[in-house]
Amino acid sequence: MTDLKNDLFLRACKRLPVERTPIWVMRQAGRYLPEYRAIRKKADFLTMCKTPELAAEITLQPIDLIGVDAAIIFSDILVIPEAMGMHLEMHEGSGPVFPNPIRNEADAKSLKDIDPSIDLKYVLDAVALTKKELNQRVPLIGFSGSPWTLLSYMVEGQGSKNFSNVKNLIYSDPKLAHNLLDKIANAVSLYLNAKIEAGANAIQIFDTWGGILSQNDFEMFSLRYIEKIISEIKQKDIPVIVFAKGVHFSFSRLAECGADVIGLDWSMKIGDIRKEIGDKVALQGNMDPTILYAGHERIREEAVNILQSFGNGSGHIFNLGHGILPDIPPENLKALVKSVKEESVAFHSQ
Amino acid sequence: MTDLKNDLFLRACKRLPVERTPIWVMRQAGRYLPEYRAIRKKADFLTMCKTPELAAEITLQPIDLIGVDAAIIFSDILVIPEAMGMHLEMHEGSGPVFPNPIRNEADAKSLKDIDPSIDLKYVLDAVALTKKELNQRVPLIGFSGSPWTLLSYMVEGQGSKNFSNVKNLIYSDPKLAHNLLDKIANAVSLYLNAKIEAGANAIQIFDTWGGILSQNDFEMFSLRYIEKIISEIKQKDIPVIVFAKGVHFSFSRLAECGADVIGLDWSMKIGDIRKEIGDKVALQGNMDPTILYAGHERIREEAVNILQSFGNGSGHIFNLGHGILPDIPPENLKALVKSVKEESVAFHSQ
Repeated sequence: MTDLKNDLFLRACKRLPVERTPIWVMRQAGRYLPEYRAIRKKADFLTMCKTPELAAEITLQPIDLIGVDAAIIFSDILVIPEAMGMHLEMHEGSGPVFPNPIRNEADAKSLKDIDPSIDLKYVLDAVALTKKELNQRVPLIGFSGSPWTLLSYMVEGQGSKNFSNVKNLIYSDPKLAHNLLDKIANAVSLYLNAKIEAGANAIQIFDTWGGILSQNDFEMFSLRYIEKIISEIKQKDIPVIVFAKGVHFSFSRLAECGADVIGLDWSMKIGDIRKEIGDKVALQGNMDPTILYAGHERIREEAVNILQSFGNGSGHIFNLGHGILPDIPPENLKALVKSVKEESVAFHSQ
Repeated sequence: MTDLKNDLFLRACKRLPVERTPIWVMRQAGRYLPEYRAIRKKADFLTMCKTPELAAEITLQPIDLIGVDAAIIFSDILVIPEAMGMHLEMHEGSGPVFPNPIRNEADAKSLKDIDPSIDLKYVLDAVALTKKELNQRVPLIGFSGSPWTLLSYMVEGQGSKNFSNVKNLIYSDPKLAHNLLDKIANAVSLYLNAKIEAGANAIQIFDTWGGILSQNDFEMFSLRYIEKIISEIKQKDIPVIVFAKGVHFSFSRLAECGADVIGLDWSMKIGDIRKEIGDKVALQGNMDPTILYAGHERIREEAVNILQSFGNGSGHIFNLGHGILPDIPPENLKALVKSVKEESVAFHSQ
C-alpha cells in the first residue's frame, strides 16, 4: 500500500487484513508526557504549533516513547479561524479565547478566505518535517475541526456550557449560520488537501460539539458540511476518520457520510455499533479514558473487553473514546499499548 | 385517581388516557423568571431552599405565570450530602462547592446517616406548605439526585470537566465506591419516602452524570442504586421518573429499572425510543432547550415535531431535554406551553 514499515493503521482504516489491531490515542502528543511538558515550559502553546521543529518533535514523542501505530501532527483546530482573521488568545487554565467572536453579518464579513500555502504554511512545514523525521516508521494523521465545531468556538468566543450564542444564531438567523458554515467548510477543504499534499497519510475530522445538537440539527448544521469536505478531498485513497463526540443517534447516517472510519466515544459497546454499521466503515475507539487511572491488570482486562466486543477481523483501530487526560501516568498508556498489541493477535488469526 | 383538578401529568406517567399531553419543564422555577430573580436578590440560594415560605412561593411561580401541568418543589440535589455532614458552599457564578470532598475511607467515615424528619425538615415543610398553597391545582413532584450523581459531586467537590477523581475512585477502590453509593442510596430512599409522606405526588431521580460512564459502568455504579431506591419507595402508586442525562445506550435496561417514566435529553427522536421501550414505560421530554431562543412559530413547529414523533396515545409528558436556560424570555416558554396544550389534543382524540 505504501513504503511504510508499519501500515497496520492504514490497512485497518480500509478494513484490509492486519496481523493485529493498531492503536493510537487522541492527545497522545500531550501534557501527560514529561517530555512534552519540558518543551511547553520553554514555549507557549501557539509557539509550539507554529514552530515546525517543535511541532515535529512533539508529534514524534509518543512514537518513540509509547510505541503507538500512528502519529498525529501536533496542532490545534483553531488555527483555521485564526487564519481566517480572528485574533486567538490561549489563556493558561481556561483555554482558547477569541476576544472578538462572530455574532452577526458584519462580524462574518471580517472573515477572509484562506490560502493554506501562505496562511497555514507553518502547519504544512511541520507535516513535511515530521514525515521526514518519521522516516516511514508509521503513518501521519492530519486533522481539522468540523465546520460546526469551529463555528461554535468562533461564535461563543470561548468554552461554553450551553452554547447559547451559537444555538441562538442557528435558530434566529439560519441563513447566516449556513453562510458561515459554508465558508468554514471551504477553508477546511483547502486546508486538508494541503495537509495531504504535504504528506499526511490520513485525515481525522473532529466534531467535538456535534453532540450538543438534536438529531435533525446535527444532520442539517454539521453532517452536511462534513460530507461536503469529504467529497472535496482530492486524493480519494487517503482514509478519512470522522469523530463526532456525543453523537449517538445518527450512526447509520454517519456511516454514509463518505468517511472510511467512524470514531466512537466510550458510551456505547463497539460491538453493537459494528453490528449496526461495521460492514460499511471501520470503527475507531472506544475505551473510557479514565480507565487509564486503573492498575495495569484492569487496563488489560478492559482492552480485552473492547477487542472481544469488536470481535474477529479487521476494521478496528484501537483508541480512547476521548483525549488522554493530562494526569495519566505514561506507564499506564504504555501498558495499554502493550496489551492491545499482544491480545489483539488472536482476533486476526483467521 | 386523586382530588387534583388537573391530574393529566399523573395519568400520563401511568400511561392512562389523557385529553391532551401534559407539560412541565425542568428548572421551571428558576432564573429565567424575573419574579424568581426578585426573590433571589433578597436571599441567597441556600436560604431560598431552606425557607419553606420562599421555596413554596418559588415553586408556585411557574404554575401561576406559565401554566404548566405540574409543580416541582424548589430545592437542590446537594441538600443530601449536606445533611450527611458535608459543608456546602454556593459560589456565585461557579456553582456549588464542597471544600472538603470525600476521597478516601477516612473521609467516608465522616458521613453520617440521615433522619430526614430532622436533617431535612425544611424540605418536608416546604413540600407540605406548597401542597397547601397549590390547593389541588396540579400535582407536586419531589426529586433527588441519583447516588452516582451525588457521589460525583461529593468526590469532585465541585463541577468537573473529566470527573478524574470519582473515576479514579471507582477504578482504584471499587469497594469504597460501592460502600459510599450504598450509603447515599439509603439516604435518598429515606428522603424520597419522607417527601412522599409530606405530600409529593411523584418523584424524579436526576442522574445528571450517568452519561460520563461507559455502558457497563453505568449499570454497575449508577443504575443498580437507582433500582435499589425505587424498590424501597413504599407507596407503590407514586410515579417515579428517572432522567439519566446523556445515557443513550441502556434504554432497554433503563426501562426495566422500576421507573414509570424515563426522561430523555434532546439528542434522540422520542418516537424511536417509544418504539424501543414505550410499551413498558412513559417517556418525558425531549425538546432542545435552546429552541426557546427561536421565534414563537418555530417553537410551535418544533413542539408539533416532537408530538408527531411520539405519535398517538398517552404515555408522553412534554418537557425540555434539560433545564430551561436562564436567559430565555418567559414569553417563549409560555408560547411553548400554549402550543403543546393546543396541538396535542389531536393526538389523544381516539
